[in-house]
Amino acid sequence: MNDADADLGFARLDLSRPRRTGLGETVFCPGKTAPQLIEILRAFRESGQRVLGTRCSPEQAAAVAEAGLPAVYDATSRTLAFGAPAEPLGGRVAVLTGGTADVPVAEEAARTAAFFGAEVARCYDVGVAGLHRLLSRLDEVRAADVVIVVAGMEGALGSVVAGLVAAPVVAVPTSVGYGAAFAGLAPLLSMLNACAEGLAVVNIDNGFGAAVMACRILRVSQRKASRNG
Amino acid sequence: MNDADADLGFARLDLSRPRRTGLGETVFCPGKTAPQLIEILRAFRESGQRVLGTRCSPEQAAAVAEAGLPAVYDATSRTLAFGAPAEPLGGRVAVLTGGTADVPVAEEAARTAAFFGAEVARCYDVGVAGLHRLLSRLDEVRAADVVIVVAGMEGALGSVVAGLVAAPVVAVPTSVGYGAAFAGLAPLLSMLNACAEGLAVVNIDNGFGAAVMACRILRVSQRKASRNG
Amino acid sequence: MNDADADLGFARLDLSRPRRTGLGETVFCPGKTAPQLIEILRAFRESGQRVLGTRCSPEQAAAVAEAGLPAVYDATSRTLAFGAPAEPLGGRVAVLTGGTADVPVAEEAARTAAFFGAEVARCYDVGVAGLHRLLSRLDEVRAADVVIVVAGMEGALGSVVAGLVAAPVVAVPTSVGYGAAFAGLAPLLSMLNACAEGLAVVNIDNGFGAAVMACRILRVSQRKASRNG
Amino acid sequence: MNDADADLGFARLDLSRPRRTGLGETVFCPGKTAPQLIEILRAFRESGQRVLGTRCSPEQAAAVAEAGLPAVYDATSRTLAFGAPAEPLGGRVAVLTGGTADVPVAEEAARTAAFFGAEVARCYDVGVAGLHRLLSRLDEVRAADVVIVVAGMEGALGSVVAGLVAAPVVAVPTSVGYGAAFAGLAPLLSMLNACAEGLAVVNIDNGFGAAVMACRILRVSQRKASRNG
Amino acid sequence: MNDADADLGFARLDLSRPRRTGLGETVFCPGKTAPQLIEILRAFRESGQRVLGTRCSPEQAAAVAEAGLPAVYDATSRTLAFGAPAEPLGGRVAVLTGGTADVPVAEEAARTAAFFGAEVARCYDVGVAGLHRLLSRLDEVRAADVVIVVAGMEGALGSVVAGLVAAPVVAVPTSVGYGAAFAGLAPLLSMLNACAEGLAVVNIDNGFGAAVMACRILRVSQRKASRNG
Amino acid sequence: MNDADADLGFARLDLSRPRRTGLGETVFCPGKTAPQLIEILRAFRESGQRVLGTRCSPEQAAAVAEAGLPAVYDATSRTLAFGAPAEPLGGRVAVLTGGTADVPVAEEAARTAAFFGAEVARCYDVGVAGLHRLLSRLDEVRAADVVIVVAGMEGALGSVVAGLVAAPVVAVPTSVGYGAAFAGLAPLLSMLNACAEGLAVVNIDNGFGAAVMACRILRVSQRKASRNG
Amino acid sequence: MNDADADLGFARLDLSRPRRTGLGETVFCPGKTAPQLIEILRAFRESGQRVLGTRCSPEQAAAVAEAGLPAVYDATSRTLAFGAPAEPLGGRVAVLTGGTADVPVAEEAARTAAFFGAEVARCYDVGVAGLHRLLSRLDEVRAADVVIVVAGMEGALGSVVAGLVAAPVVAVPTSVGYGAAFAGLAPLLSMLNACAEGLAVVNIDNGFGAAVMACRILRVSQRKASRNG
Amino acid sequence: MNDADADLGFARLDLSRPRRTGLGETVFCPGKTAPQLIEILRAFRESGQRVLGTRCSPEQAAAVAEAGLPAVYDATSRTLAFGAPAEPLGGRVAVLTGGTADVPVAEEAARTAAFFGAEVARCYDVGVAGLHRLLSRLDEVRAADVVIVVAGMEGALGSVVAGLVAAPVVAVPTSVGYGAAFAGLAPLLSMLNACAEGLAVVNIDNGFGAAVMACRILRVSQRKASRNG
Repeated sequence: MNDADADLGFARLDLSRPRRTGLGETVFCPGKTAPQLIEILRAFRESGQRVLGTRCSPEQAAAVAEAGLPAVYDATSRTLAFGAPAEPLGGRVAVLTGGTADVPVAEEAARTAAFFGAEVARCYDVGVAGLHRLLSRLDEVRAADVVIVVAGMEGALGSVVAGLVAAPVVAVPTSVGYGAAFAGLAPLLSMLNACAEGLAVVNIDNGFGAAVMACRILRVSQRKASRNG
Repeated sequence: MNDADADLGFARLDLSRPRRTGLGETVFCPGKTAPQLIEILRAFRESGQRVLGTRCSPEQAAAVAEAGLPAVYDATSRTLAFGAPAEPLGGRVAVLTGGTADVPVAEEAARTAAFFGAEVARCYDVGVAGLHRLLSRLDEVRAADVVIVVAGMEGALGSVVAGLVAAPVVAVPTSVGYGAAFAGLAPLLSMLNACAEGLAVVNIDNGFGAAVMACRILRVSQRKASRNG
Repeated sequence: MNDADADLGFARLDLSRPRRTGLGETVFCPGKTAPQLIEILRAFRESGQRVLGTRCSPEQAAAVAEAGLPAVYDATSRTLAFGAPAEPLGGRVAVLTGGTADVPVAEEAARTAAFFGAEVARCYDVGVAGLHRLLSRLDEVRAADVVIVVAGMEGALGSVVAGLVAAPVVAVPTSVGYGAAFAGLAPLLSMLNACAEGLAVVNIDNGFGAAVMACRILRVSQRKASRNG
Repeated sequence: MNDADADLGFARLDLSRPRRTGLGETVFCPGKTAPQLIEILRAFRESGQRVLGTRCSPEQAAAVAEAGLPAVYDATSRTLAFGAPAEPLGGRVAVLTGGTADVPVAEEAARTAAFFGAEVARCYDVGVAGLHRLLSRLDEVRAADVVIVVAGMEGALGSVVAGLVAAPVVAVPTSVGYGAAFAGLAPLLSMLNACAEGLAVVNIDNGFGAAVMACRILRVSQRKASRNG
Repeated sequence: MNDADADLGFARLDLSRPRRTGLGETVFCPGKTAPQLIEILRAFRESGQRVLGTRCSPEQAAAVAEAGLPAVYDATSRTLAFGAPAEPLGGRVAVLTGGTADVPVAEEAARTAAFFGAEVARCYDVGVAGLHRLLSRLDEVRAADVVIVVAGMEGALGSVVAGLVAAPVVAVPTSVGYGAAFAGLAPLLSMLNACAEGLAVVNIDNGFGAAVMACRILRVSQRKASRNG
Repeated sequence: MNDADADLGFARLDLSRPRRTGLGETVFCPGKTAPQLIEILRAFRESGQRVLGTRCSPEQAAAVAEAGLPAVYDATSRTLAFGAPAEPLGGRVAVLTGGTADVPVAEEAARTAAFFGAEVARCYDVGVAGLHRLLSRLDEVRAADVVIVVAGMEGALGSVVAGLVAAPVVAVPTSVGYGAAFAGLAPLLSMLNACAEGLAVVNIDNGFGAAVMACRILRVSQRKASRNG
Repeated sequence: MNDADADLGFARLDLSRPRRTGLGETVFCPGKTAPQLIEILRAFRESGQRVLGTRCSPEQAAAVAEAGLPAVYDATSRTLAFGAPAEPLGGRVAVLTGGTADVPVAEEAARTAAFFGAEVARCYDVGVAGLHRLLSRLDEVRAADVVIVVAGMEGALGSVVAGLVAAPVVAVPTSVGYGAAFAGLAPLLSMLNACAEGLAVVNIDNGFGAAVMACRILRVSQRKASRNG
Repeated sequence: MNDADADLGFARLDLSRPRRTGLGETVFCPGKTAPQLIEILRAFRESGQRVLGTRCSPEQAAAVAEAGLPAVYDATSRTLAFGAPAEPLGGRVAVLTGGTADVPVAEEAARTAAFFGAEVARCYDVGVAGLHRLLSRLDEVRAADVVIVVAGMEGALGSVVAGLVAAPVVAVPTSVGYGAAFAGLAPLLSMLNACAEGLAVVNIDNGFGAAVMACRILRVSQRKASRNG
C-alpha cells in the first residue's frame, strides 16, 4: 500500500490511480474555482499524465483556454480533455440513447470512453417507441465489444438491447422524463429488473461511470494478453 | 339518482350497476364465507343477472359446486363465471404477457373480458428479452381492437407494444419479480412513463380492472351505433 | 419492418408513425431551438403531414409565427397546432377537472384530442368537495364516448366519475397540491386504486397521453367499420 | 405533575389518564399473556375503573371469560369491554365505511366510541363507486355530531363526505387493497390531501384512535358546559 | 342536491358552502390575477358573504387595497380577511408551535380560526427540546377547547401535548427542517404514529385545514344546542 | 495491518477485533447450526476470549447448554453470554423505553452493555404519552454517563430525553407500531430530525449496536486516563 | 429475425438464445412442476444443449434425479447444472462476499459463471468491518479478470474493491440485513453511488445476473480474437 | 423544572440550556433579520454567555461586524463564534471527510467542536475509493477520542473507519452526490446499516449535531471526574 498523492492544499491528486486501476485520472469540476482547476491541470501535466475534466462549465473551460492550456472542451457533454492522445484500448463501445434528451449523458459516456482509448460508435434516438429504428441499426450495435444504453422515461431500451446482443451491456438511466419518472427512479428500477440478462446498471445520469466500466471491460483482454504474452 | 341495491345483511348488491355502467356485476370473493357466496349467487340468479366471482379460492368454488349452482371455475385465474352466456360485445381483445409467471393475472383479464362478451386472443410469453417472439405474432396482436399487456419485472413490454399497434393499450404491471421490483413498483413506474403513446395503466396485478376498461372501450362503438341508429 | 424516418441531423422524424399507430405526429418542444423547431415543422409540411407541438414555450411559438408558419398556439395548454384540419374521429371526449389549477393539463388533453379529430366537451372545476357541481352536469358527461378526468390533490374525482358513467375513463393525476401530495404521487396512487372499475391511468400531468389514449379508443369503431365495411 | 401509576412489574398502569385526558383507560392486548391480561383487568376493577382491551385475540378473550371476569368480547373489532356502563357523552358519532372489508376497523371505532359513552350510528359499504348509496343515507350522516370515515383502496370517501357535512370528519385509511395501495399508503395520502376541508386523519387501520378523537370532540361541549355552568 | 354556484367564467364560487358546511367561504389565491381576485371579492360582497383569502401574496393584497376593498392582510400568514366580523363560535383554540420557523403556518391557523369566530390563544416556540417551556404554559393550553399543534423537524410536540390535555388535538406537520425531514415527511409520520391518543393530523403546512377542523369541532356544541334548544 | 483470524472453514473469527476496537467479540447467531455455534464458542474459549452471542434462538441456547458450555442465555434479549466476567468500564448506561413492546430491543442493549463491563440502569415504559413517568425518574436518568433511548411508534422519547440530560444519547428506533410506522421508518426519521441536540441514531431494532456505541463512549475516559497516566 | 423457439405448451424454450447472446440457456425453476421441469431438461438434451436451472428447490432436484437425468444440484446456490462440460471462456472471475450470509447469492454467481466456462475464485467473508481480511487477499482478487462483489447491509465492499482493482466490478446487493436495510435497498443505493469508478450493479440477490454479465465480459476477448483471427 | 428563558418578543432564548445540557447555547441564523441577530448576540453578552451562530449568511455576518460585535465568522462552515474562549473539554475529535465537497459540513462540525472546547484534528478527502489515503493517516485518526466521519455518495467511509478504530464514531451523511443518492438518503441508509459496530448517525448535513454529540461524549469523563473527585 505505498500509493502516492500530490497534495495541492485545496485538493489531493491521486496520481497512482492510473497504475492502480489502469485508466487515466479524472477531475470532477463542480465546486472548483478556475484558478484551482488550472493549477490541477498543470500538476497533471507536470507529472506527465493525461486528465479528463467532467461536468465542466463553459466558464471554467473558457478560463482554462485563457490560461493557455490546450484542453479540448465539449459543451454538450461538459467534458474537458487535456493531454496526449490515448493509447488505443483495442475495442469498440457502442453508445445508444432512447431519445435526443438523453444525448448529453450519452456524450459524456462517449467522450470519456474515447478519452481512455476506446473506439466509439454512436447510435442515438433509437428508443423502443419506434422499434424499427433500433432494428435497422442492429448490425452496428452487434459489432461493438461493449454496449452502453442511455435512456430515461421507462428505460425499456436496456432490456430490449440486452436481449439482442451478445456483448455486455452497461445501462445508464437518465433523469429525462417527468411526473412518475421521479427524476430517474423509473428507468433505474426498470434497468435493474431487466428480464434480459447480461446487463448491469450505473447511477442516474452517470455517463462517465458507464464509460469507465466499459473501458475496464475492454482492458480485460489487454491484461489477459499481457499476462499470457 | 334512484339506483337500487339488494341488501343481504352481510353485503349490499349493487343491482343497478349493469344499467349504470353497461357491464355485468362482479363479486370480489375474498373474505366471504361459502354460504355468503352461495346466497349472493342465488340473489343474482333471482334478479336474472349474470355475475362473475373474482379471486375465488378452490374451496369456495367447490362449495358453490356442491350447492348445485352451475358456475364455471378456472383455477389459474381464480374466476367463477355464473349465469347465461354474455351477449357479444363485437370486438376482440388481445392479452399479452411478458413471461409465464404473468399468466394468472392475464387469465383473470382474459376470462373477465370473455365473460363480458369480448372475443379474446391470448399471446403469452412474448417478453422483450426475446423480441422475435413478439414480432412473429405481430399480425395477431394488430388484429385486436384493444390490447392488454401484462408484465412484471421491468414491464418494458407495454412501451414496445404501444409503439407497434394502433389500438389502445391497457397495461397491467404484475408483482412478478424480486428485489428492486418492489412488488410491482418497477413495472408500474415503467408503464406510467412509457415513451410510446396510447397506453394507460391499471393497478398492479389488476387483470380484472384491465378487462373492464377494455370492455368499456369495446362498448363505445355499440353505444355510438345505438345513439346514431 | 420497413418503416421510414426523416433524419434532420439533430432529430429523426418518425414519419411512419401515423400509418403505424393511426394518429398524427407530435413534437415535444422543450430543448429544441427555435430554428430547429421551424425546420421540423417545415419537414412535416413537406411530407404533407399535420403535426402538434406540445409543451411549446411562448418564445418558441413567437419564433414560429415570425417565420411565417401558420401554426395555432394556445398559451394555457402550451400546444402548437400546425397543418390542415383533422378528419373527424366521429366521437366525443369529455374532459373534467377537479379544480381550476388542473386546467392547463386538461387543456393539453382537450386540444390534443381536438387536433386528432375528436369532439371535445369541457367540464371544469367539478371536484368532489362540492359534489353537486358534478352531479348537475352528469348528463353532459354521460353523453361522451370517453371521459378524461384530470385531478390533483387526492384525485378522488376519478373514482367518483368511473362509478357514474359507462364510458371508459382515462385518469390524469396532476402535480397540483402541496405537502403530502408529493408532486402528484397522492392522486396517482388514488387513481390506480380506484374502487370503481373502468378507469385506467396515465403519468402525472400527462394530458397529452390521456388524449392519445382517448383518440385511440375512438378509432376502435372506425377500424372495426373499415374492417367490416 | 403528581400523577400516579400502578406498577404490576410487567406493566405500569396509567391510572391518572382518565382524569388527565377525560376518557377511560385502554389496554393494548397483543404481546400480553393471558395471566397478565387478567391481572391487569383485576387491577383496574380494584381501582374502580372501566377499561377497554383492543386488538384482543379470541384466545385471550376466552381466558378472561374462564377467569370469571365479565368482559364483553366482540370478535370482529377484537375489542374487550370491561366494567360499568359508560356515562353518556351526549353526542352521536356516525361511522362510515367504503366497503365491507373495512368493517373490522370501523367496528373498532364504533365499539370504542360506544365504550366511552358516545351514541353510534353505522353506515357501512357506502363507497364512492356507487355514490347513490351514500347520498341515500345523507340525512343519517348529517345528523351526527362527528363523522368517522373508514376507507381503504383510494380512500376517496373522506373527501366526498367532508364536502357534504358540517360536522368534523375523522378519516381512517385502511390497509384494504393490494398492489399500489401499498398497505394503506394510498388512502392515507388521499385523505391527507383531501380537497374538501374539515377533515383530519389518523394512522392506517387505527379505528381506536379515530374514536378517541371523536369522543374528545364530543366532550368539548360537556367541558364548556361545566366551565360555564 | 340543489346547491348553487356563481360562475365568473374563470372561477365558480360555491356560495352554498357556508350553508352546507357551516363555515364561511375561502379563496385560495395562488394562480389568480389581481383583477380576478378583486372580482371574486366583489361577488362575495354582493352575495352578502364574508370571505377569507389564503396564501395571498403581498402583491395581490396591495392590488386589493388599491381597488378600494377594505380587506385586512397579514403578511406572515398570507391571509386576507374580507367582510363583516364573524359571529363568535363560543370556544377557544390554542395554537402551539415547536419553533419560530413554524410560526407562518401557525398564524395561518390562528387567523383562519379567528376569521371563523373562534377565540385564539397563541403559545409559540414551546418545542420539546426545552420541555419546561411547554410545562410552564400548560394551564393556558389546558384551558382551550381545541388544541392545534404546529411542528416540523421530528414533530414530537404532537404526542407530548396530546398526552397532557383532554381536548382534541389537531396536528399540523410543517416542512421546517432539512435532510431526513424530507420536506415534512418526518413530522407527518411522527404525528400519525403518536403513542398518545386524541390527536388527528392534516396535510403538511396546512394551517388553514387545521383551523377549519378546529372550528367544525367548536360548532358541534352550537349545533347540539340548536338541535336541543 | 497484521491482524489475525481463526478460520474454522464455515466462519472466520476476527480474534484481533478486541485489541483493535477495545471491546469483546460477538457472534451473530442466526443461520448458524448448533454444532457450528458450539465450535465457535470453543474456539473463543481456547483463545482465552469472552464472547457474546446475539439473536440466539432458544434451540441454539439449549444445544449449547447440552454441550456442557456454561453460557448464560436470556430469552427476552436473545443474548448468550460466554466467558469470564467483564472488567468494569467504570461508567453507567441508562436504558429507557417508550413502551413495554420495546423491551426486547432494550434488553439486547442492556445485556450487551453489561457484558462489555458497563453498569446498567433500566428505566422502561416511560413514553411521552404520560410524561410524568419520565419526569419522576429524571434523577436516575441524569445520573447516567450515557443514555440509550429505545422507542417505536413516533419515537418522540429521543428528543425529549436529549433536551433534559447532559449525557450523550444513543437513540434506537424500533419496529414497534403499525400502519404508517412502516416497520420503524417513522421513529427512525423522528430521531434523526430531533430538535434537541446531543443525540445520534443506530439502525432500527439495533439494541446491540447502541450498546457498543455506549461502551465505546465509556472507554473514552479509560483510554484518556491510560494515555495520560 | 428468424429465431426459433421450442413450444412445449406450458413453456416456450428460446433455443436460439445461445447463438444470439453467446451463452447457454437457463431455466428459472420456481413455479414449474417436477414433470414440466423434467420435460424441459429432456427437450434441451434432445436439441443438444446444456442448460442451467436456477432457484431450483431440493424437491425439484430430487425429482429430476429420480427421473434418471444426470443433473448436478447444489443446495446452497439452488442451481441445477445439466449437460456436457462448458467450453472454457479463458478467464477468471473472483467472487467476494461481505459476510457469510451473502454466500448463497455468491454461490449462485460462482456456479453460474463456472457453468458458462469461467474459472472461479472465491473470496468470502471479507467485509469492510475487518479490512485486513480483504487486504490480505488482494493479490488473489487482483489476479481476476472480472470481480463480482456480493454484499448486503451497507454494501460498502463494492466501493472499496472498485478502488483497489483494475478489473471491471459487478456489484450484487443482497437482502441480508434488517431495519433500514429495507430488504436490500441500502446496499443497492450504496453500490449505485459508489465513489469509486469501474463498477456496475445488478438487481438485489441477483447472483445469476452478475455471473452472466461477467461471462459476457470474458467473451469480449474471445469475440475480438475470432473477429481478428 | 424551574428553567428560565429570555423572551425578546421575536425569540425566546433558552438561557438555562448550558446548565441543563452542559454545552453553550447556539443560534440557528436562517430566517432571522440582521437586527434580530444582533439583539440576540447582545442579550447573550449581557447574560455573560458565549454563543455560536450556525448557518449564518455572509450578509448576516457583515451586519454583525458593522454593529461592532467582535464575532468570528467562517464562510465555509457558515459559523459565527461570539464570546470568550471555551474552557477546554480535555479531549480530541478527529473530523474526516470522504471528499472535498463534504468539507463545508465537516467544517461546521470542526468549528462547533472547537467552540465548545474540543481539540480538533482534520483529516479530509480520505474516501474509500483510494483507501491508501485513509490508511496512511490511521495513527492520527486512532489518536482521537471521538471520530466524526462526514461522507456523501455511498457513505462507505463510516463502516470502514468504525472497523479500524476503538473510539466512538459519529457519522454524518451529506447531500453530496446526485441521482440515486437522493439528496443524502443513500449515505444515510449506508451508515445506519454499517456492518462495523461502534457508530451512530445524525441527520443529513448535520455537522453541528455531530459535534454536539462528540462534545457530550468528551464531557462524560469530565463529569465522571467531578462526580468522583
